[in-house]
Amino acid sequence: MSHDTDESKVRYRRTQSVTRAEEITKKESNQRKSQPDKPCHRPRDSLFSWSSGFDNFTGLVNWGFLLLTMGGFRLVLENFIKYGIRVDPVQWFVVLTGRNEGQGHPSLLLVLYSIVPIVICLMVEKGLASEVIMESAGMVVHVVNILVLVLIPMVVIHVKGQAFSLVGAMTVCFVYCILFLKMWSYVQVNLWCRTQYKQSKKRSGRRQSISIAQLQNDQSGRAVNGNGVASGAEKDKVPKLVHYPDNLHLKDLFYFLLAPTLCYELNFPRTSRIRKRFLIKRILEVVIGVHIVMGLFQQWMIPSVKNSLVPFSNMDLTKMTERLLKLAIPNHLMWLCFFYLTFHSFLNLMGELLHFSDRNFYSDWWNANNIDTFWRTWNMPVHKWCVRHLYIPVVEMGYSRISASVFVFFISAFFHEYLVSVPLKTFKIWAFMGMMAQIPLSFVSKFMEKQYGARCGNIVVWASIILGQPLAIMMYYHDYVITHYNDVLA
Amino acid sequence: MSHDTDESKVRYRRTQSVTRAEEITKKESNQRKSQPDKPCHRPRDSLFSWSSGFDNFTGLVNWGFLLLTMGGFRLVLENFIKYGIRVDPVQWFVVLTGRNEGQGHPSLLLVLYSIVPIVICLMVEKGLASEVIMESAGMVVHVVNILVLVLIPMVVIHVKGQAFSLVGAMTVCFVYCILFLKMWSYVQVNLWCRTQYKQSKKRSGRRQSISIAQLQNDQSGRAVNGNGVASGAEKDKVPKLVHYPDNLHLKDLFYFLLAPTLCYELNFPRTSRIRKRFLIKRILEVVIGVHIVMGLFQQWMIPSVKNSLVPFSNMDLTKMTERLLKLAIPNHLMWLCFFYLTFHSFLNLMGELLHFSDRNFYSDWWNANNIDTFWRTWNMPVHKWCVRHLYIPVVEMGYSRISASVFVFFISAFFHEYLVSVPLKTFKIWAFMGMMAQIPLSFVSKFMEKQYGARCGNIVVWASIILGQPLAIMMYYHDYVITHYNDVLA
Repeated sequence: MSHDTDESKVRYRRTQSVTRAEEITKKESNQRKSQPDKPCHRPRDSLFSWSSGFDNFTGLVNWGFLLLTMGGFRLVLENFIKYGIRVDPVQWFVVLTGRNEGQGHPSLLLVLYSIVPIVICLMVEKGLASEVIMESAGMVVHVVNILVLVLIPMVVIHVKGQAFSLVGAMTVCFVYCILFLKMWSYVQVNLWCRTQYKQSKKRSGRRQSISIAQLQNDQSGRAVNGNGVASGAEKDKVPKLVHYPDNLHLKDLFYFLLAPTLCYELNFPRTSRIRKRFLIKRILEVVIGVHIVMGLFQQWMIPSVKNSLVPFSNMDLTKMTERLLKLAIPNHLMWLCFFYLTFHSFLNLMGELLHFSDRNFYSDWWNANNIDTFWRTWNMPVHKWCVRHLYIPVVEMGYSRISASVFVFFISAFFHEYLVSVPLKTFKIWAFMGMMAQIPLSFVSKFMEKQYGARCGNIVVWASIILGQPLAIMMYYHDYVITHYNDVLA
Repeated sequence: MSHDTDESKVRYRRTQSVTRAEEITKKESNQRKSQPDKPCHRPRDSLFSWSSGFDNFTGLVNWGFLLLTMGGFRLVLENFIKYGIRVDPVQWFVVLTGRNEGQGHPSLLLVLYSIVPIVICLMVEKGLASEVIMESAGMVVHVVNILVLVLIPMVVIHVKGQAFSLVGAMTVCFVYCILFLKMWSYVQVNLWCRTQYKQSKKRSGRRQSISIAQLQNDQSGRAVNGNGVASGAEKDKVPKLVHYPDNLHLKDLFYFLLAPTLCYELNFPRTSRIRKRFLIKRILEVVIGVHIVMGLFQQWMIPSVKNSLVPFSNMDLTKMTERLLKLAIPNHLMWLCFFYLTFHSFLNLMGELLHFSDRNFYSDWWNANNIDTFWRTWNMPVHKWCVRHLYIPVVEMGYSRISASVFVFFISAFFHEYLVSVPLKTFKIWAFMGMMAQIPLSFVSKFMEKQYGARCGNIVVWASIILGQPLAIMMYYHDYVITHYNDVLA
């Protein structure tokens, strides 16, 4: 109840929230000063009454922010009081290297083996380019090679399951998935190039030279746009463009396999230099970030998931919901960390090292107003691949856009299931179902967006991100424990 | 990965987040369409890189809102799982009526006794007005009467402590505090009026009639402003104004004592009718709200406060902080409910019943950017009283504004301590200290506001509201238990 210095000048005037009515009253209060009882009341409404017309509640955003911070801090304290410090870096090393005692390094061997299908792929391409191999025969070899590639981890991990650690098996599946997508792209782009190459060989030399001039013009135009990454490219001399058969060698293929993209092209946009401060920041982020995620996992995720086991077996709905919500917070935090580390820190690190200048690894999915937009923006490499190598080819084959979309969703659901079921060795369909559930969810979110505005659609998207994942994790964990350690629940 | 229908038209153009660089690239991409490998990469930065210039994170507000809702819902579930249903309406009745077995109703008797000082006050005023009692003698009686009024609960509860329940004692202290403030106002306003009345009696009749005309003109001007409450007043006939000695009767005094204000004046602004829907809404809010607050108290506050006892005795800092943060949430929620119920529902209900049209019971304290503003806006009746009857008179007596402010803070701190210590029968100084701590806090919040912007000042205000109260509650509870049930901790 302390007062500003000007308060006694205008005696009964409030300093806050000056309304229209108050302006009128100022004149009136001057008249009333002559009254002996110094009146200080006048007719007006409370701010919460509709008739007051008051609607300034900006302070509540800060209130929400503060409650969230305090709640988070309390959860951290509660966790430490309950479980003590569980972070154990030695354990990380064991888990990360994926060593099982006396079994050697099967994961590492399997990753190294992936060179074989890669080399086969390149050989076939060279054969096709020099017309040693027939077009149809080459394509059959490619398809078989790529299908075998994706089947190898399934078969090996199924047969020699005991030799693989969980993290090791996951890494293998992840690497083989990415290889599958990259090789599909490589083969398809080379097919496009070969088709045009053969056509242009049939035509006169005059037309071909125009085509080359146009390409070089295009390349110089490419160097002026962009700001941060592109600035280096501006100083660059215009390099000669690589044309079709010249790209078919091992160095070019390995550059593509390491580059942070799933879509092959002959002349990737390049930066002229490596920005050292940028590189060091990204390396630090990856190193520190991985430790934070591992620490969170040991300290927060594992106890929460373990505690959820019994409620999920007993199908106790109240406790299940409580556990789900409790698990949702650390899981969501870890997912956010994982997203930043993978899509910003790691892919930018790879891009910087490889002079790769297209850093569009994610778009603003946090503002997505429906599920479709979210899936189109959170993982740009996969989205670009799906559009370029699946959706458009299927549409060009004459199918409708809706069936092309459903096809893309099916393939995507298959790979989600693949990445989870193979390492866990439990062939449940929760991940597949989770992906397919996005189709009805997409209708719900679009309905909410149209009916109740963009804000509501955005909330549905966030809810599906925050709650969907821990639900799937708990279902898998439950089934995994029941399959492998049935006696725990007894 | 489903797609909009126009997406295949502009093949490699992203639908989201169109940047300046992208506009340039559109032209370029048309040139590049002729290339056989369908290039889909171009130099650009990731959105999280500073060089991208991207800053649209509006979705994160929804994210915060959702996490807050989920966290709250989980806390409710956890509470029910841990403690079961503790809500017991029979207990409320026992607590609310404040009955102690075989002790009668001391609280009710004490509240009824307050009529005695009220009647004494009115008698003295009448005596002063008719010049039966000397001015100085009357003032001495007034001061003694008002001081005795505020001392009665202290003495009675101290002497007959065992006969009072906690809620009963609190009600008594609260009623006597309000009576103290109202009677101070009544006596002071009558003093102002009497001074002018005596002056005008000495002057000629001509000047007095002008004064009356001016007052009536003012009254008709008063009826046009305001919207909701005032609309009733517009249709009203202009009533005759009450002048000084005519106001001194029991009906007028009791109207003031029941009216939702602490500042007396001879002619309160009135509404012409009772809005029935408004009244029913407010009654329902009070009835339902009291039940919600009582339920929250039994189910959430009592277990949290009890659990905090041992950590606070052992001075275990980590557990103390965790308990404090855990207690802060239900305490803050209850405070918000209490605020709404008291300052909006109950005071509007009283105002509506009494045709009292000034409903300015609170201002927008939730937007307050420093502690001063918060104290000036959250409780308007007390703030108005302090300015009109304490701050301005002290300044007019010739003291500086700063000493007047400190004086107001001291009185306010005394009454905060009074309202807590007397019912708890533990004369600690936590509430007094809490109020006095507002002075340094006010400097901190003003510094934060100037240094880091209004947002930061608002966060400091919210933090002091959310954390200050539970800290004081736990300290009082701790001392209360140690004083009265020392064996609990053994």
